[in-house]
Amino acid sequence: MVFNINNFFDDRNKNSKIADFQDLDHIDGVSISTVSANLYNQKRDDLVLFYFRDGASYASVFTQSNIISENIKWNKKIKSKKLSALLINARNANALTGSSGFAAIKELAKQLSNQLTDKQHQDEEYPKEIKSNEILFASTGTIGEKFPLNKIKNTFPNLIKNLKYTQNKLIWIKAAMGIITTDTKPKLAMSECKIGSTNVKIYGIAKGSGMIYPNMATTLGFVFTDANLSSSILQKTLSESIKNTFNAISCDGDTSTNDMVSLISTNKANNAKIKNFKDSKLKNFRQSINDVLLNLAKRVASDGEGASKFITINCKNSKTEQEAKNICFSIANSPLVKTAIAGEDPNWGRIVMAVGKSNAKIDEKKLSISIGPFKVLSKGNLYQDYDEKVVGEYMQNELIDISVDIGLGSKKFTAYTMDLTKKYIEINADYRS
Amino acid sequence: MVFNINNFFDDRNKNSKIADFQDLDHIDGVSISTVSANLYNQKRDDLVLFYFRDGASYASVFTQSNIISENIKWNKKIKSKKLSALLINARNANALTGSSGFAAIKELAKQLSNQLTDKQHQDEEYPKEIKSNEILFASTGTIGEKFPLNKIKNTFPNLIKNLKYTQNKLIWIKAAMGIITTDTKPKLAMSECKIGSTNVKIYGIAKGSGMIYPNMATTLGFVFTDANLSSSILQKTLSESIKNTFNAISCDGDTSTNDMVSLISTNKANNAKIKNFKDSKLKNFRQSINDVLLNLAKRVASDGEGASKFITINCKNSKTEQEAKNICFSIANSPLVKTAIAGEDPNWGRIVMAVGKSNAKIDEKKLSISIGPFKVLSKGNLYQDYDEKVVGEYMQNELIDISVDIGLGSKKFTAYTMDLTKKYIEINADYRS
Repeated sequence: MVFNINNFFDDRNKNSKIADFQDLDHIDGVSISTVSANLYNQKRDDLVLFYFRDGASYASVFTQSNIISENIKWNKKIKSKKLSALLINARNANALTGSSGFAAIKELAKQLSNQLTDKQHQDEEYPKEIKSNEILFASTGTIGEKFPLNKIKNTFPNLIKNLKYTQNKLIWIKAAMGIITTDTKPKLAMSECKIGSTNVKIYGIAKGSGMIYPNMATTLGFVFTDANLSSSILQKTLSESIKNTFNAISCDGDTSTNDMVSLISTNKANNAKIKNFKDSKLKNFRQSINDVLLNLAKRVASDGEGASKFITINCKNSKTEQEAKNICFSIANSPLVKTAIAGEDPNWGRIVMAVGKSNAKIDEKKLSISIGPFKVLSKGNLYQDYDEKVVGEYMQNELIDISVDIGLGSKKFTAYTMDLTKKYIEINADYRS
Repeated sequence: MVFNINNFFDDRNKNSKIADFQDLDHIDGVSISTVSANLYNQKRDDLVLFYFRDGASYASVFTQSNIISENIKWNKKIKSKKLSALLINARNANALTGSSGFAAIKELAKQLSNQLTDKQHQDEEYPKEIKSNEILFASTGTIGEKFPLNKIKNTFPNLIKNLKYTQNKLIWIKAAMGIITTDTKPKLAMSECKIGSTNVKIYGIAKGSGMIYPNMATTLGFVFTDANLSSSILQKTLSESIKNTFNAISCDGDTSTNDMVSLISTNKANNAKIKNFKDSKLKNFRQSINDVLLNLAKRVASDGEGASKFITINCKNSKTEQEAKNICFSIANSPLVKTAIAGEDPNWGRIVMAVGKSNAKIDEKKLSISIGPFKVLSKGNLYQDYDEKVVGEYMQNELIDISVDIGLGSKKFTAYTMDLTKKYIEINADYRS
């Protein structure tokens, strides 16, 4: 992956078809540093540190795989009320690395907390102790390879020296680039909103690409805000929004051992204390968090490995939301549907096949399907005005919408995915070489 | 697909790596005819008739998709004790064709039964009436296109004229070729066994290629025998064997609207009447049916669209057989595992990922994985003698074995699949063009 930062601002316009893009800027209480720990044996940043010098409240959702990486085990174990840092590495997943993988995290947490404490002592008006359990770790990359403890540890002096207390859009882009693997683009999103009469910022970055399928927090996503909110409120906000954002995307139906999305707040905004998640003053914030997560999730799906098209799948009028979700993902994960779309072929029979295999009860006589604005199947019959040539022309678009109307209830779900191309095979057959 | 029959007998030797191959020959009471109904607008047979002039007992298993083709609806509806014919067409699935699709089957059944009755009247010592509900229909091809009733109906005189009462290996190969779509090879298998002291023959053909995933009888398979057995015994024999044969293969996790496997007996062998499925005289026959179904199923998986490698996945020591099956198929359906194997990369981390996402409870400390004869993971730790270079060399084989030991119980399952290559994308992006 060779990413040219100069092209990024052009690329952004392309991305904006999927979701709005805005520049990220300074957010109070967040410091960022990116370096190369030479994990790829090539010149690229692969280690990103977020440092919250006055602490932060935080919430996370993790992979639902039954095999989880050592850093996820660490994150689930620490029970600190306060978060001081988040360290993200690419290239090595630290999964199936056994006890040495976990010991490595422990050692990194110890070293990083010590060195950050020293920094506090030098820089700050009042010295603070950073404890090792105030650090979250995220890893992405190959499973089962020895975790490069020393390479990472040895960069700490440099990593900490590089910390900037004032952020700008380039620093955020560098951070977003430091956490990617086979992604072709960094993924950033932002929103601003009010809690009561106070403005708050919400900035997020993510990485995705392969092994993307919801069983909760898919791939890596990190959202930062200055809103003054407790960890408990953040957790409810994150859990509420994850379902229809990061858990609504799929690239290949595969779930990582390392998936993780965190919502971190520096509490620097002067909004009035919110005690109740249902407080109407929080409504705007909850919506904005949802916007940022959805924006990031769409970017992840649209940049799925080898993607040439971004696909939105709507299922409506099902008996339960779970059925609508199952139908959406049966379509989103069907290699036959995804290759047909790659081939720009309106082969709607494959959509029907995917609906049929989803386990949802179907009444053919009530089933309707549209591709883009064009009705294809109307209550079980080929739509009278269906014109394959016209729909074939629509298939040449980069953004493809598929709508399924089950006609049996009132529930719905929307999922996002990409097509399946030769490029996906190329990327994944040669991932490590 | 251009298949050169002259190459077939060479190809056979390649196939024999997967399963034994023998020539199919005459089987009493089975007549076969193949013609081109021009369904592909090119010179290839696409319509195959099996005719049982003295009737046959029969059993079938059908797709478990919630959307099924019109011919499957017909097959589920007819309740005839006796089977007189089986008609198979390629190119058009007759699925989502609405009431006109079902009416077409009804019309074909009427015409075919009338014309076969006429033939009986001409050829046979004693005239017999063939009823329309004594005919099974199998279809494979594109979903949702108008069923080519007239093209098929117009070939009937020719199709019936071509019926041969004496079969040989070339006729069987033509039949196996007449039912394929994107398959690159016809699929045939046979076995001979004894019921009591009587020799019986078992001949089978199948088609597969894409949309192959078990939710019962995957793709099309037709097995013929001269064993004198009731439809009820045949049904039990088929249901018993389908689980670890056709339901143990997956190419892409997609399930067709048209899947169907039938076991048909002409009852011409003079074996003693078997009343009880558990009769020890049936043991040899049940095993032989299993052999033929497994042989065909392996051929289907090994010729999965774009396949360059045939993969056998064993999962053992799980708590339940269902868990072992879920793990096998989580691996078999993982695009990341399948592309790694296409790339000859022993990226065992992806196997772990697939085990983890399978929903089965896993204790990492008891999990062991082997690739071929090589231990990779031993009770949660990278095996001490693991040598990636050696395993990488093994990955260059055409036949790849993956073994997963859960270490939590005593149940097991074996699944069969193929790798995921660029060729799969090519075939499926361009299927209709």
